[in-house]
Amino acid sequence: MEPIPTLRWVDGSLRLLDQRLLPDEERYVDCSRVEELVRAIKTLTVRGAPAIGIAAAYGAVIAAMTADDDGSFPDRVSADLDALESTRPTAVNLFICIRRQREILQRAEGKDEAVELLLEQANRFLEEDLESSRAMGRFGADLLEPDSVLLTHCNAGGLATAGLGTALAVIYEASDRGWVSQVYVDETRPLLQGARLTAWELCRAGVPVRVLPDSAAPSLLRSGTVDAVLVGADRVAVNGDVANKIGTYTLALAAMKAEVPFYVVAPLSSFDPETQDGGGIEIEHRGREELELLGDRKVLPDRAEVYNPAFDVTPSDMVTALITERGILK
Amino acid sequence: MEPIPTLRWVDGSLRLLDQRLLPDEERYVDCSRVEELVRAIKTLTVRGAPAIGIAAAYGAVIAAMTADDDGSFPDRVSADLDALESTRPTAVNLFICIRRQREILQRAEGKDEAVELLLEQANRFLEEDLESSRAMGRFGADLLEPDSVLLTHCNAGGLATAGLGTALAVIYEASDRGWVSQVYVDETRPLLQGARLTAWELCRAGVPVRVLPDSAAPSLLRSGTVDAVLVGADRVAVNGDVANKIGTYTLALAAMKAEVPFYVVAPLSSFDPETQDGGGIEIEHRGREELELLGDRKVLPDRAEVYNPAFDVTPSDMVTALITERGILK
Repeated sequence: MEPIPTLRWVDGSLRLLDQRLLPDEERYVDCSRVEELVRAIKTLTVRGAPAIGIAAAYGAVIAAMTADDDGSFPDRVSADLDALESTRPTAVNLFICIRRQREILQRAEGKDEAVELLLEQANRFLEEDLESSRAMGRFGADLLEPDSVLLTHCNAGGLATAGLGTALAVIYEASDRGWVSQVYVDETRPLLQGARLTAWELCRAGVPVRVLPDSAAPSLLRSGTVDAVLVGADRVAVNGDVANKIGTYTLALAAMKAEVPFYVVAPLSSFDPETQDGGGIEIEHRGREELELLGDRKVLPDRAEVYNPAFDVTPSDMVTALITERGILK
Repeated sequence: MEPIPTLRWVDGSLRLLDQRLLPDEERYVDCSRVEELVRAIKTLTVRGAPAIGIAAAYGAVIAAMTADDDGSFPDRVSADLDALESTRPTAVNLFICIRRQREILQRAEGKDEAVELLLEQANRFLEEDLESSRAMGRFGADLLEPDSVLLTHCNAGGLATAGLGTALAVIYEASDRGWVSQVYVDETRPLLQGARLTAWELCRAGVPVRVLPDSAAPSLLRSGTVDAVLVGADRVAVNGDVANKIGTYTLALAAMKAEVPFYVVAPLSSFDPETQDGGGIEIEHRGREELELLGDRKVLPDRAEVYNPAFDVTPSDMVTALITERGILK
């Protein structure tokens, strides 16, 4: 499986595959100013916990490149890092990557060295991410069997990372082994990352895909059709509770009832040593417009309010195993 | 609460509130030919198990009115009843209403008497439906308490019946008593009957509404915010298993886990004495186009298949109580 060029450093700027236009159009946008990248993260041009972290690390490079080389340099770059850090509240990778870049910034002497060291670190994040996807893929596939029917949610794929994914890295590896007979993909309302992104990725890799409404997954699990559920994570707490795309808890509950294994695939960078359990994870709530419009058509009465959390928390006792790049945690 | 004129016999034809255009537009269509009504039922211009049954009963009147008054009369009308009966496979009310009209057709002497008796029966179905909604509303509201936060799915409202609904009849009665502080409504993919229809109905009645993605309901239930779940039913089997809009099983499972009461509100006409349990209920699968397009925009890769069941089955042991027009079944 060839990695997807989700985000790449090209000629002094960060090139992002615009995920809002998929699957219709494969268009790339170049960010050479921090404000552009901040907007790209907030509007989900780039999304997925690991990809956001790496993008923000490159954002630090852009911040250093565009700041004046005078006494204000550290403060200017630091203010840009604050802006990048406040784009999305739930994924922990963002905070970890920004923290590392802050440390590098503090010990760099002058602008040129800062740019060089920040870029080295951002490239390292990207390389490590690809390596860790390959490792998660191997560990995860070892838990599966030939002829597997799998279910996944949202996009925990190459598009959510540097190019190979978390949950989808396992599916890619299992598919390379010839073990995948069918993958069911929740469409994942409201932004349809499953239908638009995961189905696109898996079709591109030649994996047989069937997309379903989120609400159809529990009865599908009850029917005994599915052999395993594989999802990613935006943050894993110390006790093993998992924050991930809204609807993940639903799948965990239905999988537990149907006695189907429920696997969370996440690199160690998604584990947050400062969050004791799921109760401590801030859940981002998103806007009314995501539910109000279907294309151009208004599908919500004006007087109706919305409840639109982007994530939910799955308690650790519902997770069969956590698949990391270092091995399996049960 | 004033009934919604979901379907009414006006000047020799059946007037339907076109549910595909809500909440944007309140437009009515008149059906005076059986083919028009068959299409209206198939395309969900009119929908909801009780409303489909009543519409089909009026369809029998239209069939009799438009058939030639000669020896072919019974066969012509009977063929039209076959067409009406085969529009949707899951709701039992349709079959019951058509069966009753067939009996009337057999004992009527000549076209004029057939038209008169069929119309009387169709009107009776409509009146009985309104009465039974009022009764379900009272029995159901008696199970609730002041300051209730309620959750519902799809549209089990006036738009799914002759005008007052099943699950929503309970909410309307509880609201009249001043007991409803908030109603959460699943948007209900793929056709968004919750966002488009239920939110429209409840806003019209002055009930506070909050619409959420289907996938957000289980974590909402887990949070302890909701006091009761109320849904309708397309068919209830002899053992109490319930077929209803896809996603109903999800709510039952999450409600059970969260120890929140899960009520199914259905008239006795939705109980099928010929279906022993949920395994015997045929589940309708709907088309690719419902998942493929978001407005005009294609959101699914060409090579991806879809899995789009319209209903699921909730086992009876997950149902706290069945609320009927004759009382409560536990």
